[in-house]
Amino acid sequence: MPEIYEAKLIALGLELPPAPQPVANYVPTLISGDLLFISGQVSKDATGHVIAGHVGIACGGITVEQGAQAAKLCALNVLSQAKAALGSLDRIEQVLRLTGFVASHADFRDQPMVINGASDLMVAVLGDRGRHTRSAVGVASLPMGAAVEIDAIIKVR
Amino acid sequence: MPEIYEAKLIALGLELPPAPQPVANYVPTLISGDLLFISGQVSKDATGHVIAGHVGIACGGITVEQGAQAAKLCALNVLSQAKAALGSLDRIEQVLRLTGFVASHADFRDQPMVINGASDLMVAVLGDRGRHTRSAVGVASLPMGAAVEIDAIIKVR
Amino acid sequence: MPEIYEAKLIALGLELPPAPQPVANYVPTLISGDLLFISGQVSKDATGHVIAGHVGIACGGITVEQGAQAAKLCALNVLSQAKAALGSLDRIEQVLRLTGFVASHADFRDQPMVINGASDLMVAVLGDRGRHTRSAVGVASLPMGAAVEIDAIIKVR
Repeated sequence: MPEIYEAKLIALGLELPPAPQPVANYVPTLISGDLLFISGQVSKDATGHVIAGHVGIACGGITVEQGAQAAKLCALNVLSQAKAALGSLDRIEQVLRLTGFVASHADFRDQPMVINGASDLMVAVLGDRGRHTRSAVGVASLPMGAAVEIDAIIKVR
Repeated sequence: MPEIYEAKLIALGLELPPAPQPVANYVPTLISGDLLFISGQVSKDATGHVIAGHVGIACGGITVEQGAQAAKLCALNVLSQAKAALGSLDRIEQVLRLTGFVASHADFRDQPMVINGASDLMVAVLGDRGRHTRSAVGVASLPMGAAVEIDAIIKVR
Repeated sequence: MPEIYEAKLIALGLELPPAPQPVANYVPTLISGDLLFISGQVSKDATGHVIAGHVGIACGGITVEQGAQAAKLCALNVLSQAKAALGSLDRIEQVLRLTGFVASHADFRDQPMVINGASDLMVAVLGDRGRHTRSAVGVASLPMGAAVEIDAIIKVR
């Protein structure tokens, strides 16, 4: 059976990073019925490099574009965890929920533009199955100083 | 069939704002089985006016009462999205979860009083079916500078 | 029938605090199908004392160890609410999701070490059934000035 969504990833010139394994008493994914829960994924690339900082240049942080790139990385890590849990991305029925946490100072208000980096990736790879509900909020700080963290609930088939 | 909960809204002198449509690659609502997921709704009224600012006058923000009004607006937007998704509020079986994000400075600790504005609205309109589990947390900042953002999971029938 | 997990709590020298009842228009727990939703629980002990403050001594806050102790308290409150809802902890099939909010200044990046206090407690008491997905984020402030707040979704049997 062709791996439709992984072919799509390749066509987009993207590669899934290895699915990070937690080093503590929790797990990256759990399936309950047709729901797949995925732990919060930070903006870390395949080499382990973290896109860090608060988003918003007015406060000395990274740009919105860099923040969107960080969110895209989170989304790739979400997909990587989904593949590790399901065997294939083709078992994704629908991405139901993304919660996007953006490291922000008090004056930053463009969290949606940042999380669009993740939303766009989901739809680019999964089409309508990637079209999710979401929340985008600005938090004080994130693990490893990451710019973005995203967790997910996915319906599987 | 009478629209019980919309009649209740009218009796309370309330009106649902139009359900905001995202302008990005995500959707306001998704149904999976009997669960309705609703994207984070910010404190924006029917005219598009956003109740903005951090809550807490000690830090130069808006009052707790203004914050509770903002949370009430979020709840109306949640109901508006639920109606758009379900056709009628009468298909709400139970509001299962509200997550309430309150724009806060480090010293603010009355997030529950703020989110009560949403909880009270839910119960005023839906009775026991509006009685939900919730979290109330203080975040650094929110989209459009909004004072409050609330997302929801609702059981439908 | 023996209460396996409560025996485990006793063996660990732990006691469940009384399940706090909300004083507002929401509920501590709701069951929908096999999912148990638990409202956000703050770091408050059986005597009502709140472990307060932001975590991170570099910013004048409490230590990571104190933060982890606060997270452990949140986890005990989650279990207390689960027991009140289910009658017995033995009805827990799997802790599916913990969302951990840590009161943090902008420079704090060790939220995972803080939330480990909750994760370790869950696994110590429930074994593999306590092994959950989670998110750990740093927020501006929490109700009652609490250091940590954690909400949960649990699969029941």
